[in-house]
Amino acid sequence: MAFELRIVLVRPRNPLNIGAAARAMANFGFRDLVVVEPYEAAWKEARSAMGAKDVLAAARAVADLSDALADRTLVIGTTAATGRTPRTGLLSLLELPARLAPKNRAALLFGPEKTGLRNEDLSFCHLLVRIPTRPDCPSMNLGQAVAVCCYELSCHAPKAARLKPSPAVLATMEQIEQLRAEWEEVLQVSGYFPSPTRRAADALKLRRFLLRLRLEHRDVDIFRGMLAQVRWRLSRSDE
Amino acid sequence: MAFELRIVLVRPRNPLNIGAAARAMANFGFRDLVVVEPYEAAWKEARSAMGAKDVLAAARAVADLSDALADRTLVIGTTAATGRTPRTGLLSLLELPARLAPKNRAALLFGPEKTGLRNEDLSFCHLLVRIPTRPDCPSMNLGQAVAVCCYELSCHAPKAARLKPSPAVLATMEQIEQLRAEWEEVLQVSGYFPSPTRRAADALKLRRFLLRLRLEHRDVDIFRGMLAQVRWRLSRSDE
Repeated sequence: MAFELRIVLVRPRNPLNIGAAARAMANFGFRDLVVVEPYEAAWKEARSAMGAKDVLAAARAVADLSDALADRTLVIGTTAATGRTPRTGLLSLLELPARLAPKNRAALLFGPEKTGLRNEDLSFCHLLVRIPTRPDCPSMNLGQAVAVCCYELSCHAPKAARLKPSPAVLATMEQIEQLRAEWEEVLQVSGYFPSPTRRAADALKLRRFLLRLRLEHRDVDIFRGMLAQVRWRLSRSDE
Repeated sequence: MAFELRIVLVRPRNPLNIGAAARAMANFGFRDLVVVEPYEAAWKEARSAMGAKDVLAAARAVADLSDALADRTLVIGTTAATGRTPRTGLLSLLELPARLAPKNRAALLFGPEKTGLRNEDLSFCHLLVRIPTRPDCPSMNLGQAVAVCCYELSCHAPKAARLKPSPAVLATMEQIEQLRAEWEEVLQVSGYFPSPTRRAADALKLRRFLLRLRLEHRDVDIFRGMLAQVRWRLSRSDE
């Protein structure tokens, strides 16, 4: 595999789907499964399921999506693209293999069975991807969606030799989140947010904006240096 | 779709898998589902399942694999290719879309959950196809296998315009089976089979042989004409 892939199931309800996702991962050579806020009973039952013992034994449950993504450099959300899903950066699954560079530490996110990923989940994503299903029956079963994505990424991935390694070392999600939090604080101190509600909404926008920049490690360092300076200046003006 | 595809589930045990197969078919625009010798309770439960009502409502249960294939011109069996599966004519799923010509009326066969297709089922197949899973976990969940195959055939199929229509009108499975039965009878009358057991085994070989020939309609007519003559001659020599 030319890239590293983590499958992230966000708030799954059905233990059969967790087990099915793990099995499909094992079928196609992926081993890194993280489950965010699983429904407690579902998580217990899935862990005792047969069929993909290694993947399930190594699977982690985390309380928060950001915990699942901290070390990732590329986050991809899946969507049926019905309703109000943003269309910007929306790829067909067929286009995805070519977008995964050798050095990517990628995460592929799947939402809960009935509702899919919500807006806040989507704000963590660099890219959105859609399995090209028919408009009259767009929404896939979760375990089957994971299987189709693992198949496409394992079997239709360009050969490593054909990909040019990217010289840039991309920032991890953890670095991006630090940068975002520091920036948000600076904006807060500056009186940028008219209300707490607005602040929460703008925090999502800020995250999306930062992801769009595809920052490298060193960019984050430079940014944070600038912010530190601004924050120091702001604290001085309070005195 | 440039070709016509029927999904055939052979002796499925689990109603969830029948429902899951139907849903994946609806997701990717396939509508023709036939279930062979379903476990009675599974069939009832699956028919009442949600998620792909149109496909399930139109699905047929048949008692015999040959009933599911009578009008088909190309039969493809799926296999995990572990153990004793014959390797001749074994394709990767990745190679399958290019092999489906516009005029094909194809059937894609899936075996029961635990055991896969048995030797007699495989004797009906022109081609065998394998989903390229990892050797350490080759066997897929049935519903997921159907989803991956429907995805590949719907989304990676060459565009109709790029395919040259085949001028030949291929024989249907029904015609092939008539020919095989007549030939078998001639061989029987000729004393070709040393024992009934041998006859059953040789019948499978004969079917495989005939499929390998990719006979057209008119070839079957010519063959049957010849056989009719031989049979007449044999009956005369009995007198």
